[in-house]
Amino acid sequence: MPEQNPGAILDLQRAARIGLTEAVLCEHKSVEQIAEILYQLRERTTPALLTRLEKDKSLRLPETLREDLDFDGRSRTAFFGTPPSGGQAPSVAIVSGGTSDAPVCLEAARTLEFHGVGAVLFQDVGITGLWRLLERIDEIRLFPVVIAVAGMEGALFSVLGGLIGAPIIAVPTSVGYGVSRGGQLSLNAALSSCAPGLLAVNIDNGYGAAGAALRLLNNRSG
Amino acid sequence: MPEQNPGAILDLQRAARIGLTEAVLCEHKSVEQIAEILYQLRERTTPALLTRLEKDKSLRLPETLREDLDFDGRSRTAFFGTPPSGGQAPSVAIVSGGTSDAPVCLEAARTLEFHGVGAVLFQDVGITGLWRLLERIDEIRLFPVVIAVAGMEGALFSVLGGLIGAPIIAVPTSVGYGVSRGGQLSLNAALSSCAPGLLAVNIDNGYGAAGAALRLLNNRSG
Amino acid sequence: MPEQNPGAILDLQRAARIGLTEAVLCEHKSVEQIAEILYQLRERTTPALLTRLEKDKSLRLPETLREDLDFDGRSRTAFFGTPPSGGQAPSVAIVSGGTSDAPVCLEAARTLEFHGVGAVLFQDVGITGLWRLLERIDEIRLFPVVIAVAGMEGALFSVLGGLIGAPIIAVPTSVGYGVSRGGQLSLNAALSSCAPGLLAVNIDNGYGAAGAALRLLNNRSG
Amino acid sequence: MPEQNPGAILDLQRAARIGLTEAVLCEHKSVEQIAEILYQLRERTTPALLTRLEKDKSLRLPETLREDLDFDGRSRTAFFGTPPSGGQAPSVAIVSGGTSDAPVCLEAARTLEFHGVGAVLFQDVGITGLWRLLERIDEIRLFPVVIAVAGMEGALFSVLGGLIGAPIIAVPTSVGYGVSRGGQLSLNAALSSCAPGLLAVNIDNGYGAAGAALRLLNNRSG
Amino acid sequence: MPEQNPGAILDLQRAARIGLTEAVLCEHKSVEQIAEILYQLRERTTPALLTRLEKDKSLRLPETLREDLDFDGRSRTAFFGTPPSGGQAPSVAIVSGGTSDAPVCLEAARTLEFHGVGAVLFQDVGITGLWRLLERIDEIRLFPVVIAVAGMEGALFSVLGGLIGAPIIAVPTSVGYGVSRGGQLSLNAALSSCAPGLLAVNIDNGYGAAGAALRLLNNRSG
Amino acid sequence: MPEQNPGAILDLQRAARIGLTEAVLCEHKSVEQIAEILYQLRERTTPALLTRLEKDKSLRLPETLREDLDFDGRSRTAFFGTPPSGGQAPSVAIVSGGTSDAPVCLEAARTLEFHGVGAVLFQDVGITGLWRLLERIDEIRLFPVVIAVAGMEGALFSVLGGLIGAPIIAVPTSVGYGVSRGGQLSLNAALSSCAPGLLAVNIDNGYGAAGAALRLLNNRSG
Amino acid sequence: MPEQNPGAILDLQRAARIGLTEAVLCEHKSVEQIAEILYQLRERTTPALLTRLEKDKSLRLPETLREDLDFDGRSRTAFFGTPPSGGQAPSVAIVSGGTSDAPVCLEAARTLEFHGVGAVLFQDVGITGLWRLLERIDEIRLFPVVIAVAGMEGALFSVLGGLIGAPIIAVPTSVGYGVSRGGQLSLNAALSSCAPGLLAVNIDNGYGAAGAALRLLNNRSG
Amino acid sequence: MPEQNPGAILDLQRAARIGLTEAVLCEHKSVEQIAEILYQLRERTTPALLTRLEKDKSLRLPETLREDLDFDGRSRTAFFGTPPSGGQAPSVAIVSGGTSDAPVCLEAARTLEFHGVGAVLFQDVGITGLWRLLERIDEIRLFPVVIAVAGMEGALFSVLGGLIGAPIIAVPTSVGYGVSRGGQLSLNAALSSCAPGLLAVNIDNGYGAAGAALRLLNNRSG
Repeated sequence: MPEQNPGAILDLQRAARIGLTEAVLCEHKSVEQIAEILYQLRERTTPALLTRLEKDKSLRLPETLREDLDFDGRSRTAFFGTPPSGGQAPSVAIVSGGTSDAPVCLEAARTLEFHGVGAVLFQDVGITGLWRLLERIDEIRLFPVVIAVAGMEGALFSVLGGLIGAPIIAVPTSVGYGVSRGGQLSLNAALSSCAPGLLAVNIDNGYGAAGAALRLLNNRSG
Repeated sequence: MPEQNPGAILDLQRAARIGLTEAVLCEHKSVEQIAEILYQLRERTTPALLTRLEKDKSLRLPETLREDLDFDGRSRTAFFGTPPSGGQAPSVAIVSGGTSDAPVCLEAARTLEFHGVGAVLFQDVGITGLWRLLERIDEIRLFPVVIAVAGMEGALFSVLGGLIGAPIIAVPTSVGYGVSRGGQLSLNAALSSCAPGLLAVNIDNGYGAAGAALRLLNNRSG
Repeated sequence: MPEQNPGAILDLQRAARIGLTEAVLCEHKSVEQIAEILYQLRERTTPALLTRLEKDKSLRLPETLREDLDFDGRSRTAFFGTPPSGGQAPSVAIVSGGTSDAPVCLEAARTLEFHGVGAVLFQDVGITGLWRLLERIDEIRLFPVVIAVAGMEGALFSVLGGLIGAPIIAVPTSVGYGVSRGGQLSLNAALSSCAPGLLAVNIDNGYGAAGAALRLLNNRSG
Repeated sequence: MPEQNPGAILDLQRAARIGLTEAVLCEHKSVEQIAEILYQLRERTTPALLTRLEKDKSLRLPETLREDLDFDGRSRTAFFGTPPSGGQAPSVAIVSGGTSDAPVCLEAARTLEFHGVGAVLFQDVGITGLWRLLERIDEIRLFPVVIAVAGMEGALFSVLGGLIGAPIIAVPTSVGYGVSRGGQLSLNAALSSCAPGLLAVNIDNGYGAAGAALRLLNNRSG
Repeated sequence: MPEQNPGAILDLQRAARIGLTEAVLCEHKSVEQIAEILYQLRERTTPALLTRLEKDKSLRLPETLREDLDFDGRSRTAFFGTPPSGGQAPSVAIVSGGTSDAPVCLEAARTLEFHGVGAVLFQDVGITGLWRLLERIDEIRLFPVVIAVAGMEGALFSVLGGLIGAPIIAVPTSVGYGVSRGGQLSLNAALSSCAPGLLAVNIDNGYGAAGAALRLLNNRSG
Repeated sequence: MPEQNPGAILDLQRAARIGLTEAVLCEHKSVEQIAEILYQLRERTTPALLTRLEKDKSLRLPETLREDLDFDGRSRTAFFGTPPSGGQAPSVAIVSGGTSDAPVCLEAARTLEFHGVGAVLFQDVGITGLWRLLERIDEIRLFPVVIAVAGMEGALFSVLGGLIGAPIIAVPTSVGYGVSRGGQLSLNAALSSCAPGLLAVNIDNGYGAAGAALRLLNNRSG
Repeated sequence: MPEQNPGAILDLQRAARIGLTEAVLCEHKSVEQIAEILYQLRERTTPALLTRLEKDKSLRLPETLREDLDFDGRSRTAFFGTPPSGGQAPSVAIVSGGTSDAPVCLEAARTLEFHGVGAVLFQDVGITGLWRLLERIDEIRLFPVVIAVAGMEGALFSVLGGLIGAPIIAVPTSVGYGVSRGGQLSLNAALSSCAPGLLAVNIDNGYGAAGAALRLLNNRSG
Repeated sequence: MPEQNPGAILDLQRAARIGLTEAVLCEHKSVEQIAEILYQLRERTTPALLTRLEKDKSLRLPETLREDLDFDGRSRTAFFGTPPSGGQAPSVAIVSGGTSDAPVCLEAARTLEFHGVGAVLFQDVGITGLWRLLERIDEIRLFPVVIAVAGMEGALFSVLGGLIGAPIIAVPTSVGYGVSRGGQLSLNAALSSCAPGLLAVNIDNGYGAAGAALRLLNNRSG
């Protein structure tokens, strides 16, 4: 077999450089690769966020690693080691169209929590029953950053964008079927909205939305 | 050159069979082909609707045909001969997101007019300024059929669909750029809407929406 | 974990507003989420329609909920509670191209039944054996609304559209392979048909077709 | 500038090898390139078929070449030199959905004519007025090869395929708009038809359909 | 549950009309639906061809039906009842690029066999080792019809098309990965080939290729 | 002709509601429609931003309107009336990959200017010559918001995202050819970047990027 | 059943002709087909490389074949028989963006090893932590050929292309989700890079990248 | 107007770093932008290659610049200043399928010439007349690098790849229509070829192919 460097090279300076710690995207990694990374992290006593970690995979990790793992099945995330304590008042509103979007909402919420930022969830306020959103809109308007989560046709993004002035980070989800094309429709709805100034992240990317929210919050006092 | 039948065979029984007269889609036809069809129609004293007729093309038709042509540039339609007089109260509401959608709205309105049915236009009530739609919604609700016209992300369809119970015929338009992909986004938004029971026609197909509305109205007393 | 509102907010006024009761799309929901919604509904003694509910999932619901569930495996639907009794003569014809389209036909039929409307199925009258459709066409013509269901190239929509004048709601299905692209071909055939005034819903969306038919029937006497 | 061989290398043995003479696809060639090829052909006294030749381009060819050119504007084809005389009874039926498909029909007919084979055109027998096709079907059934030409949703292919047993060569055309996607819809309809044994060529490829028909006819006595 | 006609309506006149008996595409049908069709066929003592029948599904059919079933796992086909005996010399050459294309080749061969027509397979003569094809080309040239089967980039179609004059029916297969997009690449290669007069069927559609070959052979003496 | 409301309904409360004034997207509007909107605006003495206004179209506006128009050809924008004076220190860095991206950069800059916010442009710092970006990175890092503009493969977004912690708004441009697909490639690169927390707007949407930046800046002191 | 030649025809002269021995792509082949090929190879005492061989499939091969098989699970490759011994200093650098790309890196390395060429792996040097790549760049620059492996947005290709002058073979991987579309994004990034002279192979095609590297190395002394 | 750096920043060290001088892609640049870049280059007495420069645009450049411009219309390239003299024997074979591919062949040849490397063109050796390629193959085999240029279905790449062992750089062209989708088909054929070790560049990218060839040649003696 050919020579090689150790498989993973951790980017430990990332937090200092851009304000976000390295996260481990587990979806395409084998259990062996994830374990190797966690051993490296433990050695450096660096906490880490694991995303897209299926329950099955988490259970196949060595016992010695699993005891340091705070795993949450609904969001498919885990905290490895102890993240910074939060304590602040919640500063992000996470607004979603339907209960099917919950896993993505929770991935965002957990990512924020790992970085010490609180969030409030406003779930199932999709626009077919417009009154549900209008009833909560004044409350939502108080947050400095809003993460909006919706699948299918993503009309929620446009309605929200016309009602509030805060930065809105749209997270399209793969909820839907047929022409919703695994979230592509909702993504394009966010990008092509008639409401000005909406921002989008990749389909089902609750982690990325939280990362963007953290960039915004980190720079508020700049 | 090979033998051939006369180029066009008119389907004059169509009105009796399905309640809609034959229309001439001019987009892919040469001036010579359109003229040939009009001569045939005149011989049978049958009025006809011409759609997607560019002004330039209409001006290159023979003078003798043009004098029987009621051409409308904004909708790119023409009436050839005398359509049935209407006289009824308007029974279709045409609701659109922005002024850029006007040509498609007018194609629908002209098609209805040609079949003796009146329409009222509610233009520029896109949902970024939601109040514009809410202000008119009670008026719209009175119509037995609603044609909704929108480009970009087509969020209008979903909002309307959650507010009124009438049949809604969504006409996506090619207004927009980038990921709106020439109307495909708005079409998919109509088809994948979280509001139940929306119906869609092809992109920019104001004629088809009117045809569907006529089918609905023709069958109301059935 | 962050604060949150209860996961689901029911839109109980929907029936009054648009004439259709809220349905629960089960495809992207966990058993826990479905159960939570059903408990809420029971508390309010509101009957509900569940769609895209796999048999496996239905069996994992709590016993106390399952005893109020009228589940139908072929259409993947369930009635929760007692829907309004119908009693009317059937007013919708459901016409399909092949026996493979049966699950979608039945989803439409069950949705109509839940709202008290009867339907007659004309299955396997695809146009390769054109005589099968022509033999039944006079019967089909008597219905005020026709739902047409077809996969593959969807030629049924165009043939029907040229033969009858009633409103036709085309439901493309994902039956087919290769270039039929999971129903996209049949959908586009409905939208781009040379027969005027066809209307389309999303791929495999029998529920949506029934919803549209209900909008039409509700507004007939309007 | 780098060395090079003469730009074009004629494949003069092609007719002997596969029964079809070389044709010159003019669409992507400059006037200079076309002229160079024609000079080479004249030297060898080889007749040739030119396809997709726009009138403008044909007029910019040198006078000495143009006098040997039999140009036809509707089909965008030209014969260079004298093709073999035909004299046979027509053996191909060319059936088309609408008058807009005429240019493609005529490209096929001219290609057949260039190879000494006659064709009969059955135009504008699209299936919205099904009686138009049924009226001619017994006549069409007499031909050993049928070329079917249709744009939009291409339902003509399936209906024909269910009615006659001859080989059917489907030519999708780019007639249509919106989701017909420049002929892709009609092509896919031919390929995914529920009628068995349909054959397809590229969009707008009347030349290719004729070439395939010639292969079939050449091998009938084999 | 709504009224309905019996699920399947057999098109028993098809053989007389177009020369091909009805085949049962099993892919989207339940075991119950397939059984129902077979019972109907048995009653009429009509033999039938079943395609895309997975072994598992075939084993779940009632014993009484299975004893009349001649199932072939490699081609996923079955003969129900006794097809006409062949006895003729083989008249179709089936040429394929690689051994991975075997299931599609065999579906074509079995369909021909069911209709009493023999075929010879020339497998694994893909053009990377061009000598393999050139070694057999004179033999292939003797057949009146050639079915060419290839996945990946489908270059076999073009090379064959330049070497022989017989009608060539190209069957793209889904063999390949990445940009071969499940056979779409190979299909487009057949349609856009620089070799004139190639004909294509849907991806993996060995059945359709055989159907087209039968149309050609049936009409040879016409 | 059917009744209609006046074509355009201005959303004059938008600035109060979301902090952005209404802009007029001129691309799909006729000269007459633009003029009508400007007359309405003048009556209310409301300044407006016009985007995607081609020079030709601007010259065909009535003289009386053009004298109040501050048109900029490179960005295809115009100010109608007097926007608020800025006076602040620049707070947005606009970083672009190549000089071809200049029109989009300038659309963003003009939109910011119209809302009284200054910007600094860092053009032509694409990553093929990585030193060009690294040379300016410390300067860029000082801005609270960064707009990154790039076409082709959009690698600039990922490199920037790994180097600075500020919110980054990626604007993909349609610069490129072949597989860059009119900007879709660059857009997807921003959305699928391995750098966490990037935000994207529609292709060529400099206006939207500025709108998002304004939302961020408006909420900084919130 | 129809006559047929033996299923597989080995192209044993390939190595002499193009410098690469035939490899067996196992993905679409049955265990029986693979075994047949291996028996043929053994008879000719020709070693072979097997690619995309799943562990399960390898275990179902006959024991007598498996004992000559050197299987590697991470790269899904196997050596059958004894490949030529290498002994040379490594001449290919394999550079990858993240640990998830390891299987593709190893497929390339094993293919090189089978042809007697050594490689060094530089894994996990993705550009979000740009320092990781810059730290190794002088070492990478020493190799005459570089294979670069990356998924997601593939920005690694552009950065590498701007830093070194060696031939760079980009291998896009299917690592990523949402708009990365199974590797299509990364592929297009390589093809549309602003860095000049990058070369690409198919998605996940480590084998093809190694083949190209071998062509380059074989011709160096030419 | 906002502050900005000078529009263009030249990457003059590029030649030293990667062996290729900076080229100016003119397609998306205005005449003013191109002129600005040329003035900067003249100041530094650096020669430059301009690509995708339309004749019209070149004629609108200032006279003082045009006199230093060696413009070639067929390849849409220009040399600005004096490139290094070549003098070597040609080391690249450029092989193309048809005369329509000439502009792309010539862009590659001119790029090589600008860097002092000679090329020989083998045009119009497409595989429909396979003898044309076989006649020249021994000559082509002598070159250390082959650039293959083809549109439509790109079968040339696979045939070449099976016949010679040199590195092959495939350049797909946009020649073709219908399903060839502007070159995407030919590109995918190169990437998904059954011939091992082919390399691809973007559609119509003769410049990139030459750049890759230069990387190969520069590293041969390395």
